[in-house]
Amino acid sequence: MDFSQVKLPPIMDMNADTITENTIAMNSGNPDLRSKYVLERLVHHLHDFARETRLSTAEWSQGIQFLTAVGQICTDVRQEFILLSDVLGLSLLVDAIDHPKPAASTEGTVLGPFHTHEAELVTPGTQISKDENGEPLLVICTVKDTNGRPIDDVMVDIWETDSGGFYDVQHADKDGPDGRCAMRSGEDGVFWFKAIKPVSYPIPHDGPVGKFLMGVHRHPYRPAHMHFMFDKPGFDKLTTAVYDRIDPYITSDAVFGVKDSLVVDFLPLDAATAAQHLTEEEQKNLSAWSLLKYDFVLVSEKEAAGLRDANSLAALEALGKRMKVYNGLPVPDVD
Amino acid sequence: MDFSQVKLPPIMDMNADTITENTIAMNSGNPDLRSKYVLERLVHHLHDFARETRLSTAEWSQGIQFLTAVGQICTDVRQEFILLSDVLGLSLLVDAIDHPKPAASTEGTVLGPFHTHEAELVTPGTQISKDENGEPLLVICTVKDTNGRPIDDVMVDIWETDSGGFYDVQHADKDGPDGRCAMRSGEDGVFWFKAIKPVSYPIPHDGPVGKFLMGVHRHPYRPAHMHFMFDKPGFDKLTTAVYDRIDPYITSDAVFGVKDSLVVDFLPLDAATAAQHLTEEEQKNLSAWSLLKYDFVLVSEKEAAGLRDANSLAALEALGKRMKVYNGLPVPDVD
Repeated sequence: MDFSQVKLPPIMDMNADTITENTIAMNSGNPDLRSKYVLERLVHHLHDFARETRLSTAEWSQGIQFLTAVGQICTDVRQEFILLSDVLGLSLLVDAIDHPKPAASTEGTVLGPFHTHEAELVTPGTQISKDENGEPLLVICTVKDTNGRPIDDVMVDIWETDSGGFYDVQHADKDGPDGRCAMRSGEDGVFWFKAIKPVSYPIPHDGPVGKFLMGVHRHPYRPAHMHFMFDKPGFDKLTTAVYDRIDPYITSDAVFGVKDSLVVDFLPLDAATAAQHLTEEEQKNLSAWSLLKYDFVLVSEKEAAGLRDANSLAALEALGKRMKVYNGLPVPDVD
Repeated sequence: MDFSQVKLPPIMDMNADTITENTIAMNSGNPDLRSKYVLERLVHHLHDFARETRLSTAEWSQGIQFLTAVGQICTDVRQEFILLSDVLGLSLLVDAIDHPKPAASTEGTVLGPFHTHEAELVTPGTQISKDENGEPLLVICTVKDTNGRPIDDVMVDIWETDSGGFYDVQHADKDGPDGRCAMRSGEDGVFWFKAIKPVSYPIPHDGPVGKFLMGVHRHPYRPAHMHFMFDKPGFDKLTTAVYDRIDPYITSDAVFGVKDSLVVDFLPLDAATAAQHLTEEEQKNLSAWSLLKYDFVLVSEKEAAGLRDANSLAALEALGKRMKVYNGLPVPDVD
């Protein structure tokens, strides 16, 4: 890039009132209309935040130090910025915007940092946990469309912690995937497997995000839950989880993932269901088992896109700007 | 901290409309009223930014990756988050808010990442640069109060790059401070020294902030300038710089530091002034020298605090909230 050839609008005489328009003018050469718009809104909100709070130099400096510490603790297996986004409610919000759900469908929730792509593809009925200290759980689910028709051949990813509240990737000495699997739904939309009853656990809180939570008197716990992710061409990808109704942290999830429709009861496993799904050996220990049943409903890509566009248009109307929606995302209407 | 004793307001059923109030409710146990307010405004603007742009999961992920890269490149001698704040206009804005200047006084500007505390305290007339390739410059300044009275014994920090556009701390093999000094104003408010004529230079642009600038078609250059910092009890600390009027980057400073009142002319040095300030040896090379004269005006702490309060009150009025100003900073009025 030849810097002497860069043409920028002349700016000068910056002050608290003119800095925003000057910054946006300097960024106006951005050839990508979408990122230009996102950056413009970012600068507006960043500056309004400083103006409204009368942000002091000392506070700004604290913020710089905090963000630096968040960045420095990140590694290949630890993403502290995602954690920060989670505890500030941003992750949940972005999922809600990007994957809007009509009333009849299953709601999404936060992905979290512990999904991996190394889960084994298993057949129905497999025990996905090797943890012998966990309480055994039978999980029987269906996946259907918004008209109630079963959807077959959906790729379902499932992941949960061990009984100590840790995902396999959090153990330095882990020996292959554990507490996770991938499976495909059958012709009747059914998928079922054996697992362990999920437990509540703290998000990693030995870093800057943990310090932040302590500072504002919040705990780092998530209520017991099991993650599910659904993928099939033609359907909007669904990332969700189900939460244990009687968990003590059900009303104070550190990452804001709980939705009423995703709260479930882990019931005692009845003998009839056990006879259909457990081995004879497993049935001898029937009283130790719990049962989770859940019916998931996927939205078609077309329906999700329509809803995304409608939501975008409503947001644009609120902004009162001359914009249009392209691929569900607002861009300036410049023709 | 005993997590089981943490009392939090019950939250549940997060969606794009309720997530902001839920997040603020979860943070409401913060015992510090000021940081609670700052955090509340932060969450509001962060969420409104996502809602207004309809931020997609892919864009959110790009943002996470960008911030992580910014954090990871930071070292003891490189602060990429300050650089990011600078190129987004935030640094200039925070200085303008925290150090408001009445019309008659010298305006402040961005500190930048190259001020150090290791400059030598020198006597009037010292040459602060060891760079023999620089064009020699005589600098004669005064420092006065807003009533035009000279202020003596002000501690003045001065720093500039070498002729190649690098500060001493940017040279791995540097041998003590160079291109910087501290000095005290005399009884007449005068301080003067010898230096080299400043040159334009790029901010460090081999990292994520540099990539960002390229992406939006901006150059990384700052126009030629010399930094000054003024400190004396009873006066509001002034961090400022003066900028060369004929610099090609004067209207497109990458960090938004230029203000009309800080733009100066580097004039040919006249024989009479040279006779008063240069050695006989230096005077033989008179035509190589330039002259910079500037009169700085400091604001009393009291006047600055009054202006800060008035600005804060105006900002609060615009917010329409029940707040009060404490130490120039808004806090909730909770009596």
